[in-house]
Amino acid sequence: DVFLQRSMSMILEEAVKKATDVRQKVCEWRSPEELKELLDLELRDGGESEAQILERCRDAIRYSVKTTHPHFFNQLYAGLEPYSMVASFITDALKPSLYTYEVSPVFTLMEDAVLRKMVQIVGWEEGDGIFNAGGSMSNMYAMNLARYRDFPEIKELGNSAAARLVVFTSQECHYSISKAAALMGIGTKNVFVVPSDKRGKMIPSALEEQIKSAKSEGAVPFIVNATAGTTVLGAFDPIDEIADICEKYKLWLHVDACWGGAVLMSKKHRHLMKGIQRANSVAWNPHKMLMACLQCSVFLIRDKTRLLQRCHSARASYLFQQDKFYDLSYDTGDKSVQCSRKPDAFKFWLMWKALGTRELEQRVDRALAIVVLLADVGNLINGIKSAKHGCSGCGIYDERNRTLKKHVAPVIKERMMKKGSMMVGYQPHGGKANFFRMVVISPQVSRQDMDFVLDEIHSLGMDL
Amino acid sequence: DVFLQRSMSMILEEAVKKATDVRQKVCEWRSPEELKELLDLELRDGGESEAQILERCRDAIRYSVKTTHPHFFNQLYAGLEPYSMVASFITDALKPSLYTYEVSPVFTLMEDAVLRKMVQIVGWEEGDGIFNAGGSMSNMYAMNLARYRDFPEIKELGNSAAARLVVFTSQECHYSISKAAALMGIGTKNVFVVPSDKRGKMIPSALEEQIKSAKSEGAVPFIVNATAGTTVLGAFDPIDEIADICEKYKLWLHVDACWGGAVLMSKKHRHLMKGIQRANSVAWNPHKMLMACLQCSVFLIRDKTRLLQRCHSARASYLFQQDKFYDLSYDTGDKSVQCSRKPDAFKFWLMWKALGTRELEQRVDRALAIVVLLADVGNLINGIKSAKHGCSGCGIYDERNRTLKKHVAPVIKERMMKKGSMMVGYQPHGGKANFFRMVVISPQVSRQDMDFVLDEIHSLGMDL
Repeated sequence: DVFLQRSMSMILEEAVKKATDVRQKVCEWRSPEELKELLDLELRDGGESEAQILERCRDAIRYSVKTTHPHFFNQLYAGLEPYSMVASFITDALKPSLYTYEVSPVFTLMEDAVLRKMVQIVGWEEGDGIFNAGGSMSNMYAMNLARYRDFPEIKELGNSAAARLVVFTSQECHYSISKAAALMGIGTKNVFVVPSDKRGKMIPSALEEQIKSAKSEGAVPFIVNATAGTTVLGAFDPIDEIADICEKYKLWLHVDACWGGAVLMSKKHRHLMKGIQRANSVAWNPHKMLMACLQCSVFLIRDKTRLLQRCHSARASYLFQQDKFYDLSYDTGDKSVQCSRKPDAFKFWLMWKALGTRELEQRVDRALAIVVLLADVGNLINGIKSAKHGCSGCGIYDERNRTLKKHVAPVIKERMMKKGSMMVGYQPHGGKANFFRMVVISPQVSRQDMDFVLDEIHSLGMDL
Repeated sequence: DVFLQRSMSMILEEAVKKATDVRQKVCEWRSPEELKELLDLELRDGGESEAQILERCRDAIRYSVKTTHPHFFNQLYAGLEPYSMVASFITDALKPSLYTYEVSPVFTLMEDAVLRKMVQIVGWEEGDGIFNAGGSMSNMYAMNLARYRDFPEIKELGNSAAARLVVFTSQECHYSISKAAALMGIGTKNVFVVPSDKRGKMIPSALEEQIKSAKSEGAVPFIVNATAGTTVLGAFDPIDEIADICEKYKLWLHVDACWGGAVLMSKKHRHLMKGIQRANSVAWNPHKMLMACLQCSVFLIRDKTRLLQRCHSARASYLFQQDKFYDLSYDTGDKSVQCSRKPDAFKFWLMWKALGTRELEQRVDRALAIVVLLADVGNLINGIKSAKHGCSGCGIYDERNRTLKKHVAPVIKERMMKKGSMMVGYQPHGGKANFFRMVVISPQVSRQDMDFVLDEIHSLGMDL
């Protein structure tokens, strides 16, 4: 009908074309108080006309941050992949949910096809997997499967009937490891934090010491989480060396490659994850460096014993009837702790089909080349130094004055938000005070954009 | 560009207009083997043309089940709400993620506005909440918050340092309670199953017996899950009586109203959830009876102590910097165990704004009226009896021959899938063999559609 036609045109114009236009602002900053006034959020007894609703959509877009804009570097995702967006639209309209083949025949098979291909790219002969609502959930799945493999009775009896289990991860790991330990009844104090070197990589000898120390306390190690692409420095833990230790102590090796997994697509850069085929499980988010639409998060497991299903199943009789007329192995719902689950695989399948593996590889190579470029250019600019770490990006910070520095980044950030010229995150790290964390992903980002970033930070902070 | 324009037209034509057209088929059944051939799922080195990709989209739609079709009754969701779909499209294009106000200013405020309104509808003076990736996650959040309220040290120390905790829920509850107990290290055997009456409602005296019995075993009760709208029979547990028992034993009362929560919108039917204001938390999915697009799942909590944040927080320094230039209470990310989180509230906010509270109420009333109608009509048809349970739907089953019956439903289901005329789920329940679970949601569903359902089941199974 007319409303839908108009909405579509408006979305293409405002949320796609303008949002990604480098001449437009990244954001139209308003304080929470101002924005509440502007949006008229209250929900009332009566409804509104279609024309009013169209205006509300326009406002929602207008005051939203344009995360697909070429000057958005604030998170570990960026840019818009149109094929992936079209796939999202289709699934929104069709409202499929992935539990049984009968309700989602197409998307069940597509998920299977994408998972098989990714298992192959990781380098496993056999494997299984599932698309999750985010990488945090994938990391939690890894911990749950590792616990189930070693102590299957905990599924029924709980941890109160078990020994104190211990997880190992580096100080640079994502916070989801600790959130998972809290939720899973393992406890955040039973996450043993292994020191990293100054580049942000886990120190394998320190891991082994921690394992020994946990055992001497009477605790029971069961999983090591290695990170491929840490959140802040983009460092890659040395998987091969960590795998040696996991084999020695018979521990599950999970690799959180939510951010870095994309390098597996690149012949040139996959050495960063050398040893990945020895992992028991991998978390990898195509919505990050590969630019699929949010969410597109994969959990992969090296297994041929249906561990995912055995660990998570509850066998609901109203969904997973055993007297169906087709092959029940296509009913994948019991692999998940979710019930309704969106068919995120389609967002990745369609863009992969359109672009081909070679183009995905070239995109990864281009993004990494830009990072090297940024590191070089950054070094030339007075007062701003940048450091190259692994692949994810650069920490741009000011070495001049440590006391001053702490306040510089927040002030520059406030100014860039209010101007709307760009967005990049800052934070302190270890001994370093606040610095900007520059994340490069989108293949549309150019050398000019990099120059712009450095000039803009410089000019916004000139007087500080 | 042209590809996007063409995709949009195709989506509106195929995935919206045709998919919801009662004259079209609900599904175009193909076996997994046939469908794999048809879809050409393999991901190759080279890409494909835009024209080819458009054809692939068309095929994905063609062979997908039309869950928005008037004759789709297979799950606890159905129908298409166009306003909600438009909101989904906008968020797909903008790629926001809800952790900080700076990245998602608009959707952060909208989530807040919707949650406040829902808290008010539940009947609480103060409250908090969050939109989750599905009701299973909301039920798990309830269990985690209850555990944290009574035993905050478990977050750090894990359940191995704690007593055996016990959950209570009815035999008719959703399987997510047991999945959550497994994942959270509580253990499925520590989910005490309380008997229900023949209508599917929890028996309060049986609950109290179970609590006493758990205590006598030395276990520690901490939460009761009541279900408002059970999955199979649509029964409403007697919340008020259960709340009395929870108060007596100082237990957290969670109400899983994922399916039934919609009755709170109706002055006429909210008595089904009498006592709801006494609950500590409520899970309520507007993507079910209120027809918001998938996913749209709310977790609500009666609290003014920031329990959600305290229980789930990990305080990541790269996201939740404490030296920001705006009010940090708008950074809601640490309330979640997810990191990236989709702004699902917008899908509900926009349709609510367009329709108004009154129209939402009328929709709920209409759906419940249709159920009563179905129950009456069903009773008239020879050989098919139906039973009205609470509000969700009717179990249509054949009393003639218990031995034969078990096989009747699967055969009728196979025939209806292959014909593509309608979709409705079947299952056994308690002493009853397989019966069809009829779920009525969409306000577009008419008396004619109900007649069609009964006639079609009858004619598909005539010879059995």
